[in-house]
Amino acid sequence: MKTTKVRDYVVESLKYALNPRTIAVVGASRYPGKVGYQVIQGLKDWNFKGRIVPVNPRADTVHGLKAYPTVDAIPDDMEVDLAFVAVPSHLIKFILESCVRKKVKLVTVASSGFKEVGRGDLQDRLTQYCRDNKLPLIGPNLLGMGSPYSNFNCGFIPYLPVAGPVAMISQSGANLLAALGTSQTTRFGMSFFVGLGNKADVDFSEFVAYAGKDPNSKCVSVYIEGLDSEEAFIEASRQVAPNKPVVAIKVGGSEIGVKAAMAHTASEAGPGDSHYDRIFKQACAIRATTWQQFLDISLALGMMPPLRGDNVVMITNGGGSGLLTCDHFERSGMPMRELKDISPDLAQRIRAYMPAFGSPLNPVDIAGTANHIQYQGALKQAIRDPNVDGVMVSTCPTAITDVAAITDAVLDLKKSFGYLNKPIIAQLQGGAECDRDILRLREAGIPAYRWAEQAVDAMVALRRYAKIQESFQEKAKEVKKAS
Amino acid sequence: MKTTKVRDYVVESLKYALNPRTIAVVGASRYPGKVGYQVIQGLKDWNFKGRIVPVNPRADTVHGLKAYPTVDAIPDDMEVDLAFVAVPSHLIKFILESCVRKKVKLVTVASSGFKEVGRGDLQDRLTQYCRDNKLPLIGPNLLGMGSPYSNFNCGFIPYLPVAGPVAMISQSGANLLAALGTSQTTRFGMSFFVGLGNKADVDFSEFVAYAGKDPNSKCVSVYIEGLDSEEAFIEASRQVAPNKPVVAIKVGGSEIGVKAAMAHTASEAGPGDSHYDRIFKQACAIRATTWQQFLDISLALGMMPPLRGDNVVMITNGGGSGLLTCDHFERSGMPMRELKDISPDLAQRIRAYMPAFGSPLNPVDIAGTANHIQYQGALKQAIRDPNVDGVMVSTCPTAITDVAAITDAVLDLKKSFGYLNKPIIAQLQGGAECDRDILRLREAGIPAYRWAEQAVDAMVALRRYAKIQESFQEKAKEVKKAS
Repeated sequence: MKTTKVRDYVVESLKYALNPRTIAVVGASRYPGKVGYQVIQGLKDWNFKGRIVPVNPRADTVHGLKAYPTVDAIPDDMEVDLAFVAVPSHLIKFILESCVRKKVKLVTVASSGFKEVGRGDLQDRLTQYCRDNKLPLIGPNLLGMGSPYSNFNCGFIPYLPVAGPVAMISQSGANLLAALGTSQTTRFGMSFFVGLGNKADVDFSEFVAYAGKDPNSKCVSVYIEGLDSEEAFIEASRQVAPNKPVVAIKVGGSEIGVKAAMAHTASEAGPGDSHYDRIFKQACAIRATTWQQFLDISLALGMMPPLRGDNVVMITNGGGSGLLTCDHFERSGMPMRELKDISPDLAQRIRAYMPAFGSPLNPVDIAGTANHIQYQGALKQAIRDPNVDGVMVSTCPTAITDVAAITDAVLDLKKSFGYLNKPIIAQLQGGAECDRDILRLREAGIPAYRWAEQAVDAMVALRRYAKIQESFQEKAKEVKKAS
Repeated sequence: MKTTKVRDYVVESLKYALNPRTIAVVGASRYPGKVGYQVIQGLKDWNFKGRIVPVNPRADTVHGLKAYPTVDAIPDDMEVDLAFVAVPSHLIKFILESCVRKKVKLVTVASSGFKEVGRGDLQDRLTQYCRDNKLPLIGPNLLGMGSPYSNFNCGFIPYLPVAGPVAMISQSGANLLAALGTSQTTRFGMSFFVGLGNKADVDFSEFVAYAGKDPNSKCVSVYIEGLDSEEAFIEASRQVAPNKPVVAIKVGGSEIGVKAAMAHTASEAGPGDSHYDRIFKQACAIRATTWQQFLDISLALGMMPPLRGDNVVMITNGGGSGLLTCDHFERSGMPMRELKDISPDLAQRIRAYMPAFGSPLNPVDIAGTANHIQYQGALKQAIRDPNVDGVMVSTCPTAITDVAAITDAVLDLKKSFGYLNKPIIAQLQGGAECDRDILRLREAGIPAYRWAEQAVDAMVALRRYAKIQESFQEKAKEVKKAS
């Protein structure tokens, strides 16, 4: 149901959604195929430290834990932060009433059978009840949520992500699962994640506002099928954007997609795609087009400072990756500049670290024979130059390339020159040794990718975010001047 | 140097570049840092079955093999198919002369120091000498070449790709290495590969023509920085295209890229990017934009029949991946159609394999609870429908999804219905179990990808290829009618 503003009582309660001291699982089940079984298994498997209270009218124990027949039967001295509800839709009202009596802080409803199957009336009645009683409701038809920082994996979810900078707020369950799955295999670090489902009550806006305050979240990434409450989203995003980047992907813009989104998470057949361009512009959010891009730029924005000017220098041992890079920069509206146009002596200084047949244009091709000493030297010259705003480094393994040694040089670069606050982004185009070092770089907080175009998308997003920050600073100045 | 036509004597000799019985390594070295050492090491490491003959004036043995001081000194009864040359550029002329005397079938020159450093004059003189003597020359400034089908890995190359359908003809060494590296880790199968370098003599066109005849090559993929001989390329590609798809990526189109390409492989600062659109159109080649796309569509075109109509049905357990898919189809100019518009009863028949809350639009969302039996049923209904031209299948693992069982169902689908000659493409969006099954599918000849947009790019390329084939068939009909 639509909200026009970010509701403070909701934002305040969301900490209980991601780090509850006590969670009641209503519909806890003894049968492994059931959500009410899986959720408790997940909590245990991932070492949740809080208390789990199963609620089941037909069992004394579930998963070896004492079960209570109803929420009302939970002892008074046992405060419940979060109720996770997985019971048939016609029973939800009864559960919500008991949660209000129990003074539960927050309810999440996993069950489906609401607006996505034409029962919008039921969903709206329940939402109104929750709002009247200031009981925030997440879902229904939701996948789950969690945070690696609190070992909390709650829902229908086979993975907990690795800990990291990205808050992932998703309408879709499936795509959230995809991001969670690749979090482990690609070291895509998350601060928390939530699959909102039908978002009857709690909406994007309130999770965005919460992420803005969460110290572990450095980038707020939002997957949208339909925005019911545009004003609230814009408000929340604009409040967060001066301090943390907001990334958005909007799907279901295609003709058939509009119908499919309705069927999937009960999103209204909304206006066209350009409408969302305007919304994201107003919201000061950075829009991604493809899923790969969504993940790639979120990681970079979560790990690196903004790119404060257009002068990116690329050091590579492969001319081809350099060409893919400069083509994609130009395609993205941010053409690279030659070294001589960036800084008069830079080419001269980098020359010392490359053979005669290398190319000191930009991308700087230090040639297939380059070793880690040459990388180190060239990278150092580039990042120290006051006219250089950011550095791109690319490794293309030849038979004589020591990929690990070059990666070490990149890690040193961040350690030694991190204080300059300039983004460093890596491309490693090769086999298993490159995949391994992509993970090593990501673990150390350096965005690293397999292909040139991914790295360029990331760098361009860092530039876009710098411009968003600048626009806020300018507005602040104008306000100051005027007053 | 420019050629206007595909030269038959060159095409004829290229089998010796990829499967020589005897290879002479001129500049064979005892020092591990040298190309002349690496190349022999590579041949041995990958179990090359032919004879290796080192040529080194200062060593009796290299790598434990008898060495000869010059090419002339190789005994008369030892026929040399291929000479791999890695000596300084000023000595090349002398080596070429001895190769002509020895009646070597083909020469590859790895050495740099030619057009890419301003010595175009030297390069042209050597090329003319080779042409006058009908000795095809690959390179100079080349990376190497090889084929997993002949255990032949020749050059500066740490990997041999896995055997498969894609002939990879690359101007750049670095990007070729990238493709070779990921070949092993992602099961991107190749029939052969070559890094052309400066392509002084042998050009794209002749390798394209060779790939057209090579039975292991099902898709011909070409990475271009600059085309010197446009007519020859168009001729070769048009000859191949009716029977095998040709995929092309052209880089260095950006302003700075034009200069960088010149420095890298001595490509002339050529005309702009739209010029290449026209060339590829004339050549009936399918153009890729990004490197990821280049690999993704090459794999699909190498593995799957063309998509003979626009009716693609997608079966998914994740609504979100369905939305990403239909958005990207629309973005690519090939919007999906609803099931009811494809085939009147299909939705009805698929309904049997999904819960009530699934969606029988298209993408068909058989819901997060779907098991392999439901996948199997839905996929079978889709592929057997005579109005369906191709099938897309997507797995998004929830806590209860048996990814391996669903993959088995997809493998069965190909076995049982492969005779229908309809493309099947898979998306597996998740963690390690998905990555593993992507490899399993690829090994069985089914293009499988991590993200929706990759799978869509692949399917769209199969449609483009069908249209290319149709245009040839129509022309053939017209010719027949006219005669």
